[in-house]
Amino acid sequence: MEKCIEQVENFKVVRVKMDRKERQGDIVVKEAPLTIFLNREELVTLLCTPHDLRYLAIGFLATEGFIKKREDIEDISLDEEKGIIRITAKDTLELAKKAFTKRMITSGCGKGTLFHSIGDTLGCGIVQSGIKNIQHTEIFNLMHKFQRCSTLFRETGGLHSCAICKDRTILKFNEDIGRHNALDKVLGECFLEGISMNDKLVLTSGRVSSEILIKGAKWGISIIISRGAPTNLAIKLAERLGITLIGFVRGQRMNIYTHSERVTV
Amino acid sequence: MEKCIEQVENFKVVRVKMDRKERQGDIVVKEAPLTIFLNREELVTLLCTPHDLRYLAIGFLATEGFIKKREDIEDISLDEEKGIIRITAKDTLELAKKAFTKRMITSGCGKGTLFHSIGDTLGCGIVQSGIKNIQHTEIFNLMHKFQRCSTLFRETGGLHSCAICKDRTILKFNEDIGRHNALDKVLGECFLEGISMNDKLVLTSGRVSSEILIKGAKWGISIIISRGAPTNLAIKLAERLGITLIGFVRGQRMNIYTHSERVTV
Repeated sequence: MEKCIEQVENFKVVRVKMDRKERQGDIVVKEAPLTIFLNREELVTLLCTPHDLRYLAIGFLATEGFIKKREDIEDISLDEEKGIIRITAKDTLELAKKAFTKRMITSGCGKGTLFHSIGDTLGCGIVQSGIKNIQHTEIFNLMHKFQRCSTLFRETGGLHSCAICKDRTILKFNEDIGRHNALDKVLGECFLEGISMNDKLVLTSGRVSSEILIKGAKWGISIIISRGAPTNLAIKLAERLGITLIGFVRGQRMNIYTHSERVTV
Repeated sequence: MEKCIEQVENFKVVRVKMDRKERQGDIVVKEAPLTIFLNREELVTLLCTPHDLRYLAIGFLATEGFIKKREDIEDISLDEEKGIIRITAKDTLELAKKAFTKRMITSGCGKGTLFHSIGDTLGCGIVQSGIKNIQHTEIFNLMHKFQRCSTLFRETGGLHSCAICKDRTILKFNEDIGRHNALDKVLGECFLEGISMNDKLVLTSGRVSSEILIKGAKWGISIIISRGAPTNLAIKLAERLGITLIGFVRGQRMNIYTHSERVTV
């Protein structure tokens, strides 16, 4: 994949093994700042893996409530060199101002819920799922495919990945040094293509903290599947919001934390 | 460890293995918000593992430049139930105001460099190390001890850990769902005890992104050792700031990315 080549950099590294050392080449994942301007106002700077930056910015803005539908987006202008993206959109000002009054820093990799508080979440409605149920073997299969997609991670060991799936198919896949960024990239791509979320499920390589859960709820995602662990807060929110939360999917094992009625074994 | 018991919660989970499922108990790491008030002004809300919250708050404030020395701290008042910590300190207002004008969201687990930009970093001086050199075997040994400390991670699979070491000894160790929080906890504890950093090294379980590097530089830490991968930006900053950056320390192997002259093999 050409994409991979652009997102890594070669370094000379001293590799030590037992009592020997040698100078070798090593590939390392790139990290760069992306500053988002919304309607000429500087909004935020994200540190991210510098690819699919349009998806990232749109996913971020949509998740945080700055934009509601793709028709509101009038222009997207990206300067990759400078790490600046300028988005022009309708009907955003009031929300943006409101959001700027809150500051929450997340436990998650990536930006997380900077712009909303736990309190807000409880205002989220119950997620109305378009998925009646899913076979446990399908979950194992999806996770297997998902891991085969993660080429960049395998090469550099420094990335999180995320996917949006329908039935047995991975529709969108992306990677980033930040868990949240990876999720925003796939969500942003779906947003731009007008793909609805209520019959999709999300796969993530990383831990599921409250913010990942909230992000899923905002988009109406009813099944979140992770290779990693959830937090207690994520489980409680999932229970309340009607989301099936599955963790530690490894090989032929998994833990279903909430709403297991959607999974047929 | 009693500490561990407080920081996890029991849940009933549906465990699937091959084609069998059963309901079992599972322990899950806690996540909770901590809102920091500095001199009566609400500063930020962190999502974190709710223990050692004094260390976390002080580490955060010191790292972000709100407080410069422990003598400036007049009072620390923690309400664990509500997740609120109030800190009274001298000479903070100007800095706090300045910091509030910037918004950067990080790729890292935890709060990262919300309050400073990459640009600021380049104003960091070269780290003056009190460590002449370290044997490679000592690094392997420290990492081995470090991993044995991580009981909570082993139990729940949802935590990052961090340690401050001198010579062959782990002085401070802590864990959190956020990489940055874990680092701030050990740094905050050292700050409160007046322990200087220039002859210490840092161990971390997580990836080393630019913000972890910058955080280390601000505290004058000259050796950063990780089980995980660095980003290209972290390597470049480490090179420039005179920090020895070591990654992928696993068993008897490691990669030394920068300033390998401090490590004797």
